[in-house]
Amino acid sequence: MFQPPRGTRDYLPEDQMKKNWVIDQIREVYEAYGYEPLGTPAFEYLEMLKIKSGDDIIDQIYAFKDKSERELALRFEMTASTVRVVATHKDLVLPFKRYAIGPVWRYERPSELRFREFWQADVDIFGVEDSIADAEVLSAAVDALKKLGFEDFIINLNDRRILKSMVAFVGIPDEKSLDAFRAVDKLSKIGLKGVIDELEGISPNEEASIKLLEMLNFKGNPENVLSNTKKIVKDYPSGIKGCEALSKLYEYAIGFGFAEYITIDLSLARGLDYYTGPVFEVLAKGFEEYGSIAGGGRYDEIVELFGGTPTYATGVSFGPDRLTPILEEKGVFKDVVLGADVYVAPVSQEVLIEAIKISQNLRRANISTVVDLMNRSLSKQFEYADKKNIPLVIIIGERELAEESVTIRDMKTGNQTRVRIDKILDYLS
Amino acid sequence: MFQPPRGTRDYLPEDQMKKNWVIDQIREVYEAYGYEPLGTPAFEYLEMLKIKSGDDIIDQIYAFKDKSERELALRFEMTASTVRVVATHKDLVLPFKRYAIGPVWRYERPSELRFREFWQADVDIFGVEDSIADAEVLSAAVDALKKLGFEDFIINLNDRRILKSMVAFVGIPDEKSLDAFRAVDKLSKIGLKGVIDELEGISPNEEASIKLLEMLNFKGNPENVLSNTKKIVKDYPSGIKGCEALSKLYEYAIGFGFAEYITIDLSLARGLDYYTGPVFEVLAKGFEEYGSIAGGGRYDEIVELFGGTPTYATGVSFGPDRLTPILEEKGVFKDVVLGADVYVAPVSQEVLIEAIKISQNLRRANISTVVDLMNRSLSKQFEYADKKNIPLVIIIGERELAEESVTIRDMKTGNQTRVRIDKILDYLS
Repeated sequence: MFQPPRGTRDYLPEDQMKKNWVIDQIREVYEAYGYEPLGTPAFEYLEMLKIKSGDDIIDQIYAFKDKSERELALRFEMTASTVRVVATHKDLVLPFKRYAIGPVWRYERPSELRFREFWQADVDIFGVEDSIADAEVLSAAVDALKKLGFEDFIINLNDRRILKSMVAFVGIPDEKSLDAFRAVDKLSKIGLKGVIDELEGISPNEEASIKLLEMLNFKGNPENVLSNTKKIVKDYPSGIKGCEALSKLYEYAIGFGFAEYITIDLSLARGLDYYTGPVFEVLAKGFEEYGSIAGGGRYDEIVELFGGTPTYATGVSFGPDRLTPILEEKGVFKDVVLGADVYVAPVSQEVLIEAIKISQNLRRANISTVVDLMNRSLSKQFEYADKKNIPLVIIIGERELAEESVTIRDMKTGNQTRVRIDKILDYLS
Repeated sequence: MFQPPRGTRDYLPEDQMKKNWVIDQIREVYEAYGYEPLGTPAFEYLEMLKIKSGDDIIDQIYAFKDKSERELALRFEMTASTVRVVATHKDLVLPFKRYAIGPVWRYERPSELRFREFWQADVDIFGVEDSIADAEVLSAAVDALKKLGFEDFIINLNDRRILKSMVAFVGIPDEKSLDAFRAVDKLSKIGLKGVIDELEGISPNEEASIKLLEMLNFKGNPENVLSNTKKIVKDYPSGIKGCEALSKLYEYAIGFGFAEYITIDLSLARGLDYYTGPVFEVLAKGFEEYGSIAGGGRYDEIVELFGGTPTYATGVSFGPDRLTPILEEKGVFKDVVLGADVYVAPVSQEVLIEAIKISQNLRRANISTVVDLMNRSLSKQFEYADKKNIPLVIIIGERELAEESVTIRDMKTGNQTRVRIDKILDYLS
């Protein structure tokens, strides 16, 4: 009872400061792109959340009733809530560019890296048909990851319409295409042989499965892959559209500055059933073993499912707290100052009020300042400042105070400097 | 089903931007005081939340079971979770100064100002016996409110031990003292007559009730009230301690710079049963009709209830989203820039990639920039920028581009200036 519920965790200050830093960086980038925040409740009507959840997620939903027997559930992602808002606010100015950074809940088997409460950071654009929207959300995600300290990426790109055309091309009937997507999507996990097994009963025969995988496995630079693909899907208008969408996306990516990372991966489906066009995932180079750290795609048919007028939509999402261990491994936090800047140490109770006044002046100048609250000896205070990694201690002594000055100690070097009280801010800056 | 669940609300971008601004100000002040963030889950074990909830709140708890039949509940405040962390992490360095800003959930009757999901912003200090801790949390709250634009306050201050002594003084038995506190706490709401009625059956007789209210109603400057009170409670050692705690708190308040706002209000109990020493509430002058906008007190006996070693504790809390309508009324948001700084308007598709490149440069300099995604005419783009309150539009024309320049339009005045592309950042700063 005195532990966080199974699958959840506490973030003690050091961890929470890191998490806040990560969230702040992401938010700064999203806002630099002009995305606007949208706030929706932590729980929604269960019925609403079920509309686009898929069977696997339904089992993971925390559902409950309120005291008036309303059937509610904690959100398992934020897209459904956002789509609900777009569908019901017909007066929203389009394009509607929104971001959301917040917790979601899924009853999954917990592990060291997987929690039942975890955060998502999303950007989505509603109202834009052109690939520029897909390119922009991807660019925002990549720039956020760069801001966090990642330098190099692999962006896998595909279009659901190409996949669909190829699946049709080898003779898989339309009603089995989603099953085929799901099988193919596992390629990197279970390998060619595994996917062929999975395709049994979906594909007309093994030959067709092999042919499909051969086509999907075609590699090369984006232009080559797309021109080759165009030839294969030439009889499928939606497949052609998919190729054109990716061509344009690639062109825009040059403008946005992330084209160099792009690989066309024709086997990429991304689990969720609702994607209608481009789909994408981002991996950090050197950290591929963590899998994709961001992903998303286009979902043009969802808003109408929620009772709205048909509205183009595309977005990308990633998990800020899943990134933290990777950033830790990269050593990113070594260069980040977390916690207080200054510790103010009165040598005795007599000078405490003066110490408080000096602290207040620093705080007003937005310098994070801790003042002794325990009437402790100077050495105990140094110990505390040290434990809290506070780099500077301002010692308030009676004699120095009489001369309107203080002593500032650099905790790393042990050097101490006498500074006039009215010059402390200058000294610190 | 397509509305937020009853009692909850969506924050559309304009509202969410205001809310984020409010939260950012609070967080900045809390961090300037050296408070560290602590993250705890949105839900906890129901049993844990019940320990200190009080009967009225138990009825408001959103409780549910997870798929393994664990009895869980959404947190209705964040103190219980924090106390749980303090109780179970015996290695925490004391004093432990933590802040938390996040949502809590209560199944209350919703109204225009009261929601079932609302945010709290808390600061608490664990491990400090002296009133300096009470003074510091209060100071942090007052400074946060100042940062938000409030200028003048009424801080009502009392000590539970004084109240307890006075209740005993008029002959109310110890086991009825909490009932007496609750009755007395309603003084400002239901008046003298109302409280006397409420005290029937609690107080020995009406005379005692009147005597009690007379004592509690004693007004004046803090020093006078406290010296007068000391005489009344002279036979009650804990009452004397309460007076001394408030005297010291007042002295520290002079150092922190908020003493001028303090009123000793001996009738102040604050609903929650667990307070053990000083209690306080903050009202904004000129906005008294909104009631207290921050409140808190000392709760030295809770950590042991959660299985920890006895630990001093004090804290203050307020509701950031309850403040927003008051700030709106004060006109605070008129001076706050929300949303994007710049809109980049390509005159045609031919210059779109260039427009994207220019946008990316601005974003890298942390200037919030929106670029046209809809291939719209210039006048439509102006319209959009106008609707979104974006103050500047950078027009990317083909002829200007050939001369490596753009036109920057001030949306307020309509003035347009020709600027070289490599000078845009200089121009904007």
